[in-house]
Amino acid sequence: MLRNKILIVIGMIAGSVLTAAWLSTPHAIAGEPPKKTEPQSTKDITADQAIAVSHAALEKAKQINTKMDIAVVDAGGNLKSFIRMDGAWLGSIDIAQKKAKTARFFDMNTGEIGKLSQPGGPLYQIEVSNGGLITFPGGIPLKASDGTVIGAIGVSGSTVDNDHTVAQAGADALK
Amino acid sequence: MLRNKILIVIGMIAGSVLTAAWLSTPHAIAGEPPKKTEPQSTKDITADQAIAVSHAALEKAKQINTKMDIAVVDAGGNLKSFIRMDGAWLGSIDIAQKKAKTARFFDMNTGEIGKLSQPGGPLYQIEVSNGGLITFPGGIPLKASDGTVIGAIGVSGSTVDNDHTVAQAGADALK
Amino acid sequence: MLRNKILIVIGMIAGSVLTAAWLSTPHAIAGEPPKKTEPQSTKDITADQAIAVSHAALEKAKQINTKMDIAVVDAGGNLKSFIRMDGAWLGSIDIAQKKAKTARFFDMNTGEIGKLSQPGGPLYQIEVSNGGLITFPGGIPLKASDGTVIGAIGVSGSTVDNDHTVAQAGADALK
Amino acid sequence: MLRNKILIVIGMIAGSVLTAAWLSTPHAIAGEPPKKTEPQSTKDITADQAIAVSHAALEKAKQINTKMDIAVVDAGGNLKSFIRMDGAWLGSIDIAQKKAKTARFFDMNTGEIGKLSQPGGPLYQIEVSNGGLITFPGGIPLKASDGTVIGAIGVSGSTVDNDHTVAQAGADALK
Repeated sequence: MLRNKILIVIGMIAGSVLTAAWLSTPHAIAGEPPKKTEPQSTKDITADQAIAVSHAALEKAKQINTKMDIAVVDAGGNLKSFIRMDGAWLGSIDIAQKKAKTARFFDMNTGEIGKLSQPGGPLYQIEVSNGGLITFPGGIPLKASDGTVIGAIGVSGSTVDNDHTVAQAGADALK
Repeated sequence: MLRNKILIVIGMIAGSVLTAAWLSTPHAIAGEPPKKTEPQSTKDITADQAIAVSHAALEKAKQINTKMDIAVVDAGGNLKSFIRMDGAWLGSIDIAQKKAKTARFFDMNTGEIGKLSQPGGPLYQIEVSNGGLITFPGGIPLKASDGTVIGAIGVSGSTVDNDHTVAQAGADALK
Repeated sequence: MLRNKILIVIGMIAGSVLTAAWLSTPHAIAGEPPKKTEPQSTKDITADQAIAVSHAALEKAKQINTKMDIAVVDAGGNLKSFIRMDGAWLGSIDIAQKKAKTARFFDMNTGEIGKLSQPGGPLYQIEVSNGGLITFPGGIPLKASDGTVIGAIGVSGSTVDNDHTVAQAGADALK
Repeated sequence: MLRNKILIVIGMIAGSVLTAAWLSTPHAIAGEPPKKTEPQSTKDITADQAIAVSHAALEKAKQINTKMDIAVVDAGGNLKSFIRMDGAWLGSIDIAQKKAKTARFFDMNTGEIGKLSQPGGPLYQIEVSNGGLITFPGGIPLKASDGTVIGAIGVSGSTVDNDHTVAQAGADALK
């Protein structure tokens, strides 16, 4: 039941998000020469924004007395910034980056994917794809004011609840 | 019970397929020098077919209002074609290809393998083999009119049900 | 001497290309809370454009009697489209993709990088980075009409001269 | 000749460093049970220092009109901080990190290693070790005031001379 509801919600989110970008899909792989077309206009996170996001996340991490690794990727899923607090887990260097990548690769919070990748779930074992995904909480897409996903933040270093809290504080810096 | 039935069906399929193939296998590993033989005749997907399959999948994807990554591999499991619709998930680039590869590597729908790879199942953790397999729906073998598997299609970008629907539309283009 | 000239040319290219985007660089990693900023506006290749590029490359490949693997990546360096002609080298599946990635990763033709990565050159052994780069000809950045790099094409399957010729034909499709 | 001198200097450095370290090494692999000893006191870069280093590098990068990827690793060779300026090469994300790692892994400037890794040189092909090293300029060890190596900076995004200049500006921030 819960699984069905999650699938419906995913479908609703996908439906509403995807409708906007729909008009420019390909009309043919080959055959008659395709018409000349313009590139799509997009948005991407700036270094200034990545720093603002990291700064807000760091403040929250200190406030709740945790030591975190904080990664930010851009719209293409490529690393934009990273900072590791003194004493933070070494193993979280990779996890923070994989969380950020995972959140951007599917434009949803990493924890949402984790609900679907459990044994018996529709995305079981998705983690082996893309050179390794992390599907527990701590990765959140970053959005421009118009809702365009311009990157993602990934946080690792404490409980997954704390990781998510810190990531959310980072994401909120762009609001 | 369902699991048992699935296992029996898999066994039946395997049995019949293997029997047919058996007649052309070597009759002795060693002993008298083997007779000179001709190479086997095979069939493989063409680029034109891969484009036709992708085109049909794209049409279906638009029709059900989704944005998909669509990969086609040949009889050798090697990438033949790929197209990513504007706005489709970046994480699906790899998953679509892994679904196609998985479907061809075992000549069955990826979702069927996923039923067997659950905890306690006979193929538990098969996903870590072959550089990473994807065992949820969206990968389907592609067949010539005589049933020969000539490749596979893998689709990713929406719910696994939608992924499978789009992949099936692609596979049907060869019928 | 040649090496110095190449370095000067690289510097000149870098200088002119980079000046335009210069104004938005970060003012501080941390310290006082950074000011709120807007995301940067960018452009990205569409699926229609990727198809047009591939189509033009395919036509050229046929015209010069070669069999090619043709890959297109987007502005983020992620695969957008791929097609392998019947009988084209299997080993070129990966090389075509790596050429496209390499061309976008450094916004220059792959062959230019190869001149700098020779023994004694300033970029010797750069190929081991980024999961593997290909630095011989066949990869070319794709540009919007205003010069923005929106992706890249990578072609492999024949001599590097032929590979470059086919890639150029693809790139010209956006002019 | 230059190469011989470099080798001699390397030998001298190695000799003096190793002599100092020798006094605290175990005097017997086996035999009588070793005495209880204290752990060694070490020094490591802080997040604040990594930010200061990155900040100084960023300022220099702007001053010489370049766009850079800037990575800092700690004494363990693990990523401490990273920032990518807007428009900087995507391919430099990995190279900047590999330069920093390489500089710390051997406690010398990356360009020095590159002189030794040429064809016929004593470290030929060292680049394939450690998951990939970068041995051209742009990586510099970071030192505490007493000379202890506490990490390294790696810079990539322009000519190797510019990369080195920016990395040096970062390293100087700790002086």
